[in-house]
Amino acid sequence: MWDVTEEMLDALEIGAGILGTGGGGNPYLGKLEVVQQLRAGKTIQIFSLDEIPDDAFVTTAGGMGSPTVSIERIGRGDECVQAMRALERHLGRRFTHVIAGEIGGANSMRPMIVAAYMGIPVIDGDGMGRAFPELQMDTFSIYGVAPTPGALADPHGHEVVFDKIANAVTLERYARAVTIQMGGAAGYAFPPMTAEEVRRTAIPGTVTLAIEIGRAVRAARAALANPVDAALVVTGGQRLFHGKIVDVERRLLGGFARGLLRIEGTGPDTGRSLRIDFQNENLIARTGTGEILAVVPDLICLVDEDSAEPITTEIVRYGLRVVVLGIPAPEMLKTPKALEVIGPTAFGYPDVPYNPLPGTYGRSH
Amino acid sequence: MWDVTEEMLDALEIGAGILGTGGGGNPYLGKLEVVQQLRAGKTIQIFSLDEIPDDAFVTTAGGMGSPTVSIERIGRGDECVQAMRALERHLGRRFTHVIAGEIGGANSMRPMIVAAYMGIPVIDGDGMGRAFPELQMDTFSIYGVAPTPGALADPHGHEVVFDKIANAVTLERYARAVTIQMGGAAGYAFPPMTAEEVRRTAIPGTVTLAIEIGRAVRAARAALANPVDAALVVTGGQRLFHGKIVDVERRLLGGFARGLLRIEGTGPDTGRSLRIDFQNENLIARTGTGEILAVVPDLICLVDEDSAEPITTEIVRYGLRVVVLGIPAPEMLKTPKALEVIGPTAFGYPDVPYNPLPGTYGRSH
Repeated sequence: MWDVTEEMLDALEIGAGILGTGGGGNPYLGKLEVVQQLRAGKTIQIFSLDEIPDDAFVTTAGGMGSPTVSIERIGRGDECVQAMRALERHLGRRFTHVIAGEIGGANSMRPMIVAAYMGIPVIDGDGMGRAFPELQMDTFSIYGVAPTPGALADPHGHEVVFDKIANAVTLERYARAVTIQMGGAAGYAFPPMTAEEVRRTAIPGTVTLAIEIGRAVRAARAALANPVDAALVVTGGQRLFHGKIVDVERRLLGGFARGLLRIEGTGPDTGRSLRIDFQNENLIARTGTGEILAVVPDLICLVDEDSAEPITTEIVRYGLRVVVLGIPAPEMLKTPKALEVIGPTAFGYPDVPYNPLPGTYGRSH
Repeated sequence: MWDVTEEMLDALEIGAGILGTGGGGNPYLGKLEVVQQLRAGKTIQIFSLDEIPDDAFVTTAGGMGSPTVSIERIGRGDECVQAMRALERHLGRRFTHVIAGEIGGANSMRPMIVAAYMGIPVIDGDGMGRAFPELQMDTFSIYGVAPTPGALADPHGHEVVFDKIANAVTLERYARAVTIQMGGAAGYAFPPMTAEEVRRTAIPGTVTLAIEIGRAVRAARAALANPVDAALVVTGGQRLFHGKIVDVERRLLGGFARGLLRIEGTGPDTGRSLRIDFQNENLIARTGTGEILAVVPDLICLVDEDSAEPITTEIVRYGLRVVVLGIPAPEMLKTPKALEVIGPTAFGYPDVPYNPLPGTYGRSH
């Protein structure tokens, strides 16, 4: 068990940005809110999965919606707190701990906001080890936790509770439809979990990992070393491509930012090109000759070539000079059961085999 | 207080069909379900607004969705019962009475189904005196009853509870989005009402009125008299146009059946033509020369010229010989407050003044 500091939040912002694989939204606004809470005297405790008691009652809390919307429409910041309270009222029971649904992007900060408002600890782990665009794409759902009851709330205080929904794919459809009506962004809380369920299904240690990535990048920047190298060492990833953004196609469709970007190789990749498709998150990286360099669930992350600052799908634009990182997915995302939900076929690439990147998620090599 | 009989249900089917003004869905399937309940020994009691006790706790129950969907996809029949139970669980309190949200169309039967399943009486009245396409278009909402909490349920047993929604227009948007995801049809229960609220805001006596319309039509048919005349006497309406359907444009858009139909005059209207626009329900009747014969909230109803059988927007087709009836709206729909929500402007006709049809809703003249 340890307490969150401002330094950790600065590091988490960078690490969660990289693990967001282009999506997940920018953690910056959430960080400001958490910093404000710390400065107001609040304490945010982080518990490892081993440290939570057997009678813990846990849920995830975060934001749902397209990152394209979240940068244009700033929420109240506490929508997920309200969603958690709505879920507690529906259940007639209080949560004892909160865990991130996805550590990648803005949803890394939301459990911290909940912890500050509700006075409960955050669990060191999450349900994705990265970011994914849809609700059913987390290890809680993949490994059998019932998806509902769950709650959505919007900045106007509106609450919607989902119950007895047969599966997470259906919940995703219903909740996405409401989120779009809520203006494209909402806070969520779901599913309620016992200690046994969260220990069995969560990806452990990802809050720590995200902080370590950010610390390595910041230390390299300060030491005038190469921040991209630093990020690779901590994540267990590799350089996939080096180049300049030459084209971005992006549209908001069904509540998602969908599109593709093209990169013209520079340095070692001069003369080659790369195309990356995304649905909020980067899904597949293919060279001009059709070679697949990486595909979901492995992480495809764009960072600035000098600073290793993460570049998300909503800010990527012509002319940026980037390195494309490939980070092996957590083992829990590579099982046949998981690949059914978050493998290439699930994202519309039934002809693409999943050839895992070498290495181990979060371990230097 | 009186008990429902099978004869009343046969009459209600016709009367509710006429008051459906083209929309509201066909009451036939619901009637079969209620008949089955009566034959199984269930009793359905009807209470007038004066007869309910001061501590009554009331809600409406019905089906939401496009009638186009409801004739293609037959529900389980008890979705609104499940929605009511979900709302009761959310509130921690049982309802003592149920009332129709709209007496026009299929939602005339749904409170009877609820009454049979849950063993509570139906109130003689509703929130529209006809059918309207959207949730906020009832007198409960217009005259200040808070729209939530409310619940939706689908044939798979999925439940969605809406709470703290600022107004009924927002609830309509959220609930419509979920209904579309539920396959285009869902059962609903909302809003909870006290005895004072329902007495103040409901349109009284509309179950009785619908039954009387159906009885008059059936009696005229049996006596080889004119069933259209019989319907007009009971409703307080008039003949607007006589003709043959020559064109129907209909599409399913945003969960609604939208379109228009064209009628070529016959008999007294030979040489003239009529165009009727609809959104589930008929909205405006205009002649070929642009004269407006009737507009919402007044009721524009198509019936078969011989039998006075109601013709809904989902079954209307080329060649049918019809009489277009104009029935004056209930007084509660004609106030400035009501016209803001269900007048011509609310339906996209800001240049059309509301010139009420002569006569009184439900009173012969």
